Amino acid sequence: MTILFYDLVGSDAGRPFSPHCWKTRMALAHKGLPFESVPTPFTGVKTMEGGTDRTIPVIRDGDTVVQDSFAIAEYLEATYPDRPTLFAGEGGRAAARFVEAWSFKTLHPLVTQIALMDIFDMLDEPDRAHFRRTREQRFGRRLEEVPCGAAPERIAALNAALEPLRTMLGHQPFIGGSSPLFADYIVFGALQWLRVSSPANVLAPDDLVTDWFTRCLDLHEGAGRKVEPAKAA
Amino acid sequence: MTILFYDLVGSDAGRPFSPHCWKTRMALAHKGLPFESVPTPFTGVKTMEGGTDRTIPVIRDGDTVVQDSFAIAEYLEATYPDRPTLFAGEGGRAAARFVEAWSFKTLHPLVTQIALMDIFDMLDEPDRAHFRRTREQRFGRRLEEVPCGAAPERIAALNAALEPLRTMLGHQPFIGGSSPLFADYIVFGALQWLRVSSPANVLAPDDLVTDWFTRCLDLHEGAGRKVEPAKAA
Repeated sequence: MTILFYDLVGSDAGRPFSPHCWKTRMALAHKGLPFESVPTPFTGVKTMEGGTDRTIPVIRDGDTVVQDSFAIAEYLEATYPDRPTLFAGEGGRAAARFVEAWSFKTLHPLVTQIALMDIFDMLDEPDRAHFRRTREQRFGRRLEEVPCGAAPERIAALNAALEPLRTMLGHQPFIGGSSPLFADYIVFGALQWLRVSSPANVLAPDDLVTDWFTRCLDLHEGAGRKVEPAKAA
Repeated sequence: MTILFYDLVGSDAGRPFSPHCWKTRMALAHKGLPFESVPTPFTGVKTMEGGTDRTIPVIRDGDTVVQDSFAIAEYLEATYPDRPTLFAGEGGRAAARFVEAWSFKTLHPLVTQIALMDIFDMLDEPDRAHFRRTREQRFGRRLEEVPCGAAPERIAALNAALEPLRTMLGHQPFIGGSSPLFADYIVFGALQWLRVSSPANVLAPDDLVTDWFTRCLDLHEGAGRKVEPAKAA
């Protein structure tokens, strides 16, 4: 049965941007499972699948509803063990939690800083109001007063934060080793979020991280590449 | 046959401090393999086991000599597959490379900044000269001119750098999941290096990282705890 995949979108349903949803999209593609995406705006998230306080992504697989990108990856691994592995063992599953925390705590704040208003601009009006309210609460100031955008020092900070990945790529082509695992999709999600929402040139052409990101865009019949990078307004 | 383990020491052979050697000491203990440590000063490193340009740690297991903490862990895993696993699968092995890069690029520079002169003070005279020459070359200035020591802002920076580990520990007790793997020993090595060389109080009592580090000190009959923390001069 085709899996339903609730994916966050703005005004263009063909340009999904959520980092967490990209993790799930890549995990589904990795498992080779047929899925149908349900484009979902910010204001539709809480009530997905009859919920009252849901977060995105959510999948429905037959009678089973699973929420949260990591829980979805664990569910897919447990439910479809004969398909390509997302973790390559318990050590890989556990360490993916570390990669998740690293990406969330170091990359996400920097991507948010660079792309904040780009993301706002991608949304329809009701979602803009939701985004403004929640983000102004988080940052404690008006959206327009949050320092953001592709300033050189922010791009430099993101590149500095990527140094552990860059160093690791001197040893192996993927966080998963010789081929990608869910840990790669976690970090890919953060950089794909930036690629789809911001026109900023962040990665240098001669960077090992760029080579890795390009390899990730190529995976699963170019699942990531099918969405064009953001264009300057 | 007992494995020979070349371990870096200063003037007190009972206070090994190298982060890379601690990874190996913990890996050997994890595998439950009998080993005999060969206390080795900085000036003895290059020529260990008949070498000309060696780095520490090195082990000799029968006729096999292995250098580099990660290579040693891989060797032990391949050679003693029936003993407790260090990686729990290929995904865990590959992700440990990411943890290694993260620890090396984010924690090591901060530990170095805090403990630089403490480490210098632990050494015998010929090793002090070696340490001074190599570190002055690295930092481009006299050792005494490198900003170092346990200043509050450096301790804060180290705690900030540990945030991904702290966040992950909200999900599970070890990087390896429910029990420790080599990835834990990689990060333990960095903090044990600091514990043995610097008297600075770096980790707060109510920190998840402190709980994890305490669990690591307890492992393998308290292998890490057997070396007392550094005392203020």
